[in-house]
Amino acid sequence: MPSAMPTHDIRALTFDIFGTVVDWYGSIAAEVARRQLPTDGGRFALDWRAGYQPAMQEVRSGALPWTNIDGLHRRILERVLAAHRITLPEADAASLNRIWHRLDPWPDSAPGLARLKRRFVLATLSNGNVSLLVDLARHGALPFDCVLSAELFAHYKPDPEVYLGAARLLDLAPAQVMMVAAHPSDLRAAAACGLRTALVPRPRESGPGGAMEPWIAGEFNFVADDFLALAEQLGA
Amino acid sequence: MPSAMPTHDIRALTFDIFGTVVDWYGSIAAEVARRQLPTDGGRFALDWRAGYQPAMQEVRSGALPWTNIDGLHRRILERVLAAHRITLPEADAASLNRIWHRLDPWPDSAPGLARLKRRFVLATLSNGNVSLLVDLARHGALPFDCVLSAELFAHYKPDPEVYLGAARLLDLAPAQVMMVAAHPSDLRAAAACGLRTALVPRPRESGPGGAMEPWIAGEFNFVADDFLALAEQLGA
Repeated sequence: MPSAMPTHDIRALTFDIFGTVVDWYGSIAAEVARRQLPTDGGRFALDWRAGYQPAMQEVRSGALPWTNIDGLHRRILERVLAAHRITLPEADAASLNRIWHRLDPWPDSAPGLARLKRRFVLATLSNGNVSLLVDLARHGALPFDCVLSAELFAHYKPDPEVYLGAARLLDLAPAQVMMVAAHPSDLRAAAACGLRTALVPRPRESGPGGAMEPWIAGEFNFVADDFLALAEQLGA
Repeated sequence: MPSAMPTHDIRALTFDIFGTVVDWYGSIAAEVARRQLPTDGGRFALDWRAGYQPAMQEVRSGALPWTNIDGLHRRILERVLAAHRITLPEADAASLNRIWHRLDPWPDSAPGLARLKRRFVLATLSNGNVSLLVDLARHGALPFDCVLSAELFAHYKPDPEVYLGAARLLDLAPAQVMMVAAHPSDLRAAAACGLRTALVPRPRESGPGGAMEPWIAGEFNFVADDFLALAEQLGA
């Protein structure tokens, strides 16, 4: 259903990546199976991801100096391996950490982005570091125009520096930029900075039985089932 | 002729843009003609470009606070218009300044990049600001993986912060990155930071009668007539 909101003043779409564009749960569970690690791959993926917000909070509070996501994932991995009673040689742990650079996109991601690109500038806007995002885009043939990352601003989402920094680098007013994410909290922070918002729920993000953050009808400018449906709503 | 230098340790290519990937002289001269401005378009292009190094030097010296290239181009444009005895309404001058976002690529740029992309990560590494580079890539269908710009480091090339910052964001050692440029001075600064270097001379960069900066045989790791020839030499 097309929204009543005019779209002609939206010039760029900025995309959350983990969960919104790529399937971290399925990709990590598959990697754990491929490596024949003696544990449940889905549980391992959930535990690794669960360390993410607390680790960023350590950076935000100053308890940890600026550390990019590769570094945070590596710190969390040590704890997750211990919790799952797995011992890995250093080289294997480093190599496992790189799975975050090879996460598979959702099936609609690449074709949806290709269609959206005809009308809008497309940028990543992720807490993932630049090299990780470059690798994900190459791995999934995701046609972004530009890789924007929390790393460029030395702040993690939902800090306003990230959303406002993206608009500044794109030389646009915040209202000309629309944040696209599967996570209501990310979109609320973007809206507080003046950006437009599009929710693309990914109910399978956390695997079977995962729950979405709740949201209120009408809270976001657009809600679409996937990127192709979003393109349809935006006339792209 | 394939070089004797091993290429397997080169992971990313970073590209100078103005003159190396896009033809600023021809594009600006054509725009001056299209707008029927009463002056010589080639001369106008050369004068505009001539203001570029001194303007960046003003930023480097601290005489001017950090100003991106759109801002510097606009300042220079005022002087060039005056020198050519042209008066333009503000909106027309602002619109003319945007020609730097729509410069045409050299004929080999897009196909050469597409071929190089199969083997290497491709990033811009230009003094142009991010939004300008995004527009140029979209205008010319240039398949860069990543837009890196002096703007991200608040330093202009040839300051080392730009070359070292690019390697850091790509998570590579400087020797795993190769700078590709038509300008020996850019490559010398990159080499001083430990990057590899590839010269792609663009003898028509400054129009008929323009001269290239001199260089010494063997000074750079690769010298290629265009991006397709570079791909051939790199086995891409």
